Amino acid sequence: MAYKPGRHFLQLPGPTNVPDRVLRAMDTPTIDHRGPEFPDLTGEVIAGLKGVFGTKSDAFIFPASGSGMWEAALVNTLSPGDAVLAFDQGFFSAGWQNLATKMGLVVHSMPGDWRRALNAGILEEKLAEDTEHAYKAVLAVHNETSTGVTSDIGAVGKALRTTDHPALLMVDAVSSLGSMDFQHDEWHVDVTISGSQKGLMLPPGLGFNAVSEKALKAASDSTLPSAYWDWRAMKSFNDDGFFPYTPATNMLFGLRESLRMLREEGLSNVYARHARLAEATRRAVEAWGFQLYAERANERSDTVSAVLMQGEITADDFRRTVLDRFNMSLGGGLGRLRGQIFRIGHLGDFNELMLAGTLCGIELGFRVMDVPFRDAGIEAALSYLAETQ
Amino acid sequence: MAYKPGRHFLQLPGPTNVPDRVLRAMDTPTIDHRGPEFPDLTGEVIAGLKGVFGTKSDAFIFPASGSGMWEAALVNTLSPGDAVLAFDQGFFSAGWQNLATKMGLVVHSMPGDWRRALNAGILEEKLAEDTEHAYKAVLAVHNETSTGVTSDIGAVGKALRTTDHPALLMVDAVSSLGSMDFQHDEWHVDVTISGSQKGLMLPPGLGFNAVSEKALKAASDSTLPSAYWDWRAMKSFNDDGFFPYTPATNMLFGLRESLRMLREEGLSNVYARHARLAEATRRAVEAWGFQLYAERANERSDTVSAVLMQGEITADDFRRTVLDRFNMSLGGGLGRLRGQIFRIGHLGDFNELMLAGTLCGIELGFRVMDVPFRDAGIEAALSYLAETQ
Amino acid sequence: MAYKPGRHFLQLPGPTNVPDRVLRAMDTPTIDHRGPEFPDLTGEVIAGLKGVFGTKSDAFIFPASGSGMWEAALVNTLSPGDAVLAFDQGFFSAGWQNLATKMGLVVHSMPGDWRRALNAGILEEKLAEDTEHAYKAVLAVHNETSTGVTSDIGAVGKALRTTDHPALLMVDAVSSLGSMDFQHDEWHVDVTISGSQKGLMLPPGLGFNAVSEKALKAASDSTLPSAYWDWRAMKSFNDDGFFPYTPATNMLFGLRESLRMLREEGLSNVYARHARLAEATRRAVEAWGFQLYAERANERSDTVSAVLMQGEITADDFRRTVLDRFNMSLGGGLGRLRGQIFRIGHLGDFNELMLAGTLCGIELGFRVMDVPFRDAGIEAALSYLAETQ
Amino acid sequence: MAYKPGRHFLQLPGPTNVPDRVLRAMDTPTIDHRGPEFPDLTGEVIAGLKGVFGTKSDAFIFPASGSGMWEAALVNTLSPGDAVLAFDQGFFSAGWQNLATKMGLVVHSMPGDWRRALNAGILEEKLAEDTEHAYKAVLAVHNETSTGVTSDIGAVGKALRTTDHPALLMVDAVSSLGSMDFQHDEWHVDVTISGSQKGLMLPPGLGFNAVSEKALKAASDSTLPSAYWDWRAMKSFNDDGFFPYTPATNMLFGLRESLRMLREEGLSNVYARHARLAEATRRAVEAWGFQLYAERANERSDTVSAVLMQGEITADDFRRTVLDRFNMSLGGGLGRLRGQIFRIGHLGDFNELMLAGTLCGIELGFRVMDVPFRDAGIEAALSYLAETQ
Repeated sequence: MAYKPGRHFLQLPGPTNVPDRVLRAMDTPTIDHRGPEFPDLTGEVIAGLKGVFGTKSDAFIFPASGSGMWEAALVNTLSPGDAVLAFDQGFFSAGWQNLATKMGLVVHSMPGDWRRALNAGILEEKLAEDTEHAYKAVLAVHNETSTGVTSDIGAVGKALRTTDHPALLMVDAVSSLGSMDFQHDEWHVDVTISGSQKGLMLPPGLGFNAVSEKALKAASDSTLPSAYWDWRAMKSFNDDGFFPYTPATNMLFGLRESLRMLREEGLSNVYARHARLAEATRRAVEAWGFQLYAERANERSDTVSAVLMQGEITADDFRRTVLDRFNMSLGGGLGRLRGQIFRIGHLGDFNELMLAGTLCGIELGFRVMDVPFRDAGIEAALSYLAETQ
Repeated sequence: MAYKPGRHFLQLPGPTNVPDRVLRAMDTPTIDHRGPEFPDLTGEVIAGLKGVFGTKSDAFIFPASGSGMWEAALVNTLSPGDAVLAFDQGFFSAGWQNLATKMGLVVHSMPGDWRRALNAGILEEKLAEDTEHAYKAVLAVHNETSTGVTSDIGAVGKALRTTDHPALLMVDAVSSLGSMDFQHDEWHVDVTISGSQKGLMLPPGLGFNAVSEKALKAASDSTLPSAYWDWRAMKSFNDDGFFPYTPATNMLFGLRESLRMLREEGLSNVYARHARLAEATRRAVEAWGFQLYAERANERSDTVSAVLMQGEITADDFRRTVLDRFNMSLGGGLGRLRGQIFRIGHLGDFNELMLAGTLCGIELGFRVMDVPFRDAGIEAALSYLAETQ
Repeated sequence: MAYKPGRHFLQLPGPTNVPDRVLRAMDTPTIDHRGPEFPDLTGEVIAGLKGVFGTKSDAFIFPASGSGMWEAALVNTLSPGDAVLAFDQGFFSAGWQNLATKMGLVVHSMPGDWRRALNAGILEEKLAEDTEHAYKAVLAVHNETSTGVTSDIGAVGKALRTTDHPALLMVDAVSSLGSMDFQHDEWHVDVTISGSQKGLMLPPGLGFNAVSEKALKAASDSTLPSAYWDWRAMKSFNDDGFFPYTPATNMLFGLRESLRMLREEGLSNVYARHARLAEATRRAVEAWGFQLYAERANERSDTVSAVLMQGEITADDFRRTVLDRFNMSLGGGLGRLRGQIFRIGHLGDFNELMLAGTLCGIELGFRVMDVPFRDAGIEAALSYLAETQ
Repeated sequence: MAYKPGRHFLQLPGPTNVPDRVLRAMDTPTIDHRGPEFPDLTGEVIAGLKGVFGTKSDAFIFPASGSGMWEAALVNTLSPGDAVLAFDQGFFSAGWQNLATKMGLVVHSMPGDWRRALNAGILEEKLAEDTEHAYKAVLAVHNETSTGVTSDIGAVGKALRTTDHPALLMVDAVSSLGSMDFQHDEWHVDVTISGSQKGLMLPPGLGFNAVSEKALKAASDSTLPSAYWDWRAMKSFNDDGFFPYTPATNMLFGLRESLRMLREEGLSNVYARHARLAEATRRAVEAWGFQLYAERANERSDTVSAVLMQGEITADDFRRTVLDRFNMSLGGGLGRLRGQIFRIGHLGDFNELMLAGTLCGIELGFRVMDVPFRDAGIEAALSYLAETQ
């Protein structure tokens, strides 16, 4: 492939720009996964992950994508025909529900507006009505990557406790973990799903489950078949520092490094950085005269901003131009949003000048495609960044 | 961790020593898995894999370990309660059978001798008796990593055709693929299982299935729940150059490089190299006065040699000494062979001098632990290597 | 050192941002510099360098900095007490003259204005007066890295030919080679000096001399002592593909890769890219209301722009703030320009969005330090970039 | 280039096998050599080097090969026409003397036997005779890389003190530093010369001088022209953590890492390891029935063993066969030893199994070329290694 000068801007909501430290850490000879050095690695990455999840119970690591972890959450805890309640939040919440249906579960999807956060009130009603406890699990997405809308998972956990409903709370935190505050224990989540290629700054290839004691207990009664995803086998090996089958060792080297980087920066600083860069992004978008797909200010994601393209040019043509001419990858609209939005990933190993380059790349796209815009976007972002330094 | 001088000898039967070219290929910025560059990558690795499998039908790549691919083979093709026939070949054949049982299948295990290859004659009898076609699949291991015994998969395929039995033939080629001749189509295999960290010279983290048309058709009737492992979704995305969920992009970069390396060397040269280095290993072992666990010469693996330790010193103490003092990892006995054998991996990115270092490391272990041996092993190996140059 | 999120912007006029391809190429096992593989490497890098220099005569590579190559140019061709003519162009032209004096030469420095290009007319007068041919060499800087002023080297060569003066023309092209058009042969240059860490996109550590036949002949009569820098020994080894002493092998791996990248892009595209990014930079600077140190539009460098800071805040305080708060390194004023200017490097592996990030980083610096500026700079740059796409 | 399976054995007496940790350290973005981070790097590498040299005075680092540092030693301290005394030790001692002559010095070479260490007694006589103190410097090689003979530098220093002669003692420690004990201060050395690509485990490209106070003082009176090599400029910048011209930053990253590795292992352990691996090599050579070029046991180098080839096959044909067939680079005979010896490098990042592979590679060469040998070499080495574990 011919050389394209300069650095590619990978401004997807994941995979994110993998920092050199992580790539170097992965560029290391593989070691014996049954040897005496391995438990130190296992111990460090699991402890680090638990810190990021905000849990004192268990965190498991699989060689898998995030969608594998959706499956892992379900097969470990549920049985064929079990009913689960879910929210209509966007493309990925729909994907998870499809997967659940494929796995033989009965999914009750509560209506929702993709431009809004989930409605914990409706959930509470549904749970209150379910006096037989037919619903075995509630599936929620913390940060819907396809829409840029963040939901209040604490409120979901509260609805379950208020109604004293025994369903397990399962949460997709794929595009929030490591970038936005997440509190598995405090929010009473039973299973959290995440992956390596977003806030954890790794290439794709590792999936994570944080698992409450209650969820682990449910695994004893679950009858969905499960072997690869089996938490209990995983736990019994992990406790000695090993894995029940060959783990993705070099990805674990990368994870160890990225967890060290998060610790060096400090999680609260990491979250504040994401919030500030996201706000700068939003200010640029609005100053340009564009709408964010997420309607309400307090529901807008700190990791991804979806922007509506309402003129004649489709968001996909726009993205293609930005990629071809300015060497930047933006996210596209998924499912029914195809062509209507583009998504800016502003997460992971990211800073002010990378964001500035990203925003300028978008404006350059507007300019070369004659998309109408007000040229106040960049200054709005810079002004905010300078004020909040 | 303190510096241990010099290169570690990772002489497991996998993970193997990852060549620098592969590590460097992985040490590259992640790209957009939905972008226009991706189909070239997808196309090249799938075409390359099909060549190594010896198939013109399909090959699928999952972010998974090899054992995940065992599961993928089963859930795509079978239904709860289906009967499968399997051979008692060693620790990994047993592992696959356990997994099948966990997935809700009924496993009929034909008795076997771990020191010997599978017996295709017994299979033929079993299949002939099964006039109702109760057995839906036959599970066989090509190269049992735990014993160093290679079986004749062509003969297994022939038994199915001789008896005109419709069961699917599923073969674990985890530790043979890319190192020993394997012919998915010619041997009439329906599903072949493999992984990245052996002959394909990658770190662990990718799993592969080669899938015959017949197996793909079976996927339409299978009722075992399956989403992550779903071949049909995989195929429909792969056909356009993409994946149904985020693939392990940087591992695919490594796979592209390792497939190029195999092509540069030429597969027949790769197999001849493994055969020659394996024979040198066997000559050393026997000249030292040790027994290979694999009883018959023509069944001995070209990728791993298991050596019986019969004196007072356990194989695990021996391995620990070799690791601590000479910085080499050897494989141990698994399951009921624990402590009785050590296994020498001689596969992947491997050459004469690496083998010589490996064999000398073993002899040094004998010497420092006062294990009785005849000091003719190294010369036997070198003499063979020189003659066959 | 604690993790600083995101990528550092290394916007010096060198070292420049080393592309991943070059870093990976260097991250390769060292090979035998006297072995049979080496001549291919030597041949490829020397041929590639000659292309970039625009010469059919010789190009030599030393493990050295650029200033070492100043010394190499002098000691190979001159004798103690020789007179040389030089221009007062800036910090680096002064540095070279100091070095020449240290080496025992007599330097006649023609007066110059650092904000302007060299004056070939004055040179012509000096040469015309020198009927005895006392001047043995003329030293000129093509692109003065300290001021951002580019001079017309063709005009210098012409002055020598017009006056039929036998002095050798020696040119420093450290910060122009590989980024701006340079024609060693066509411009009648005798020795061109350059280094690895600017347009050639390598880390520092290699120095280059392009050498005309005339200069090589002069080496026979030169009596300045010289061994390490000896071109003739270098040439006699290079002709066989080797080096007279151990070369910096892994740096040569990087050089091979960077020369391939320049060839892939095409040198004329490389120069056009630098010109365009430089013009965008200049438009931003002027739209902000700042002065470029280089007074005349047609003398402004395409690799580095020096900006005058005229208020209360020194350029060095400004740079320190930009580094501390926005993780970008800018060049400072050198020598008598210390504190008065900052220099923006816009060369090497560089593209529109990296430039945009760079310019935004400067504006953020203005904002947080309350440096007065007009907020039209970024839009001026983007507008130009969009128009010229 | 087509893939050659397995790792290359680079068993030259330099460059040596660069460890992954060092290559990774170099594979890091270049930083601003005038920025605030740089002094930490400068300080750490200079302090570390001083420890390895055994000096409390100065150590300087140049972007250069080892032969550049020969030149640096001379031009900093001497004046045209100065007389220097030198030993006839081998190819590199001759090279240094040629260089000194080229630089305008008058070299008095004391006769020597290349198979023997230098004779400090003859030196003492020469110095005693030199009552006028005509000799300004004594040049000695600690470990002659071309012959594998190590000399007693302490005895040389003593000869100077015994005769109360003011000449500077300059020592080439290129292939001993970091592998064999060296004591710049204790042995009263004035200038020690070394480079990066041997015991310091880096690629070539950095040169070092350790400099006594007396030598630094001599620099004030020296009239050999010198700019690039100027210690005093170097010292004045180094004292603030910087360099007088752009240093080879990424090589310094590698040096920092290799110095950390030496410290982790402990210098005395490093030396003991080299001595032990060297002794094993010598035992193999003698048990094979070959002669070491170094005649006396106590003068044999711990970093390189030169082996005499006395039959019909030249050492160069032998080396070429070993390279072509077994992927190992050995050193050849240099100058008048061309074709008569091969040299085994056993230094740097090296351990028992790498040595075993190396020795087996040599024996394989003997076997395929029908070089007569006794097959007791490998066992002799292994037996020694096991006994001394």
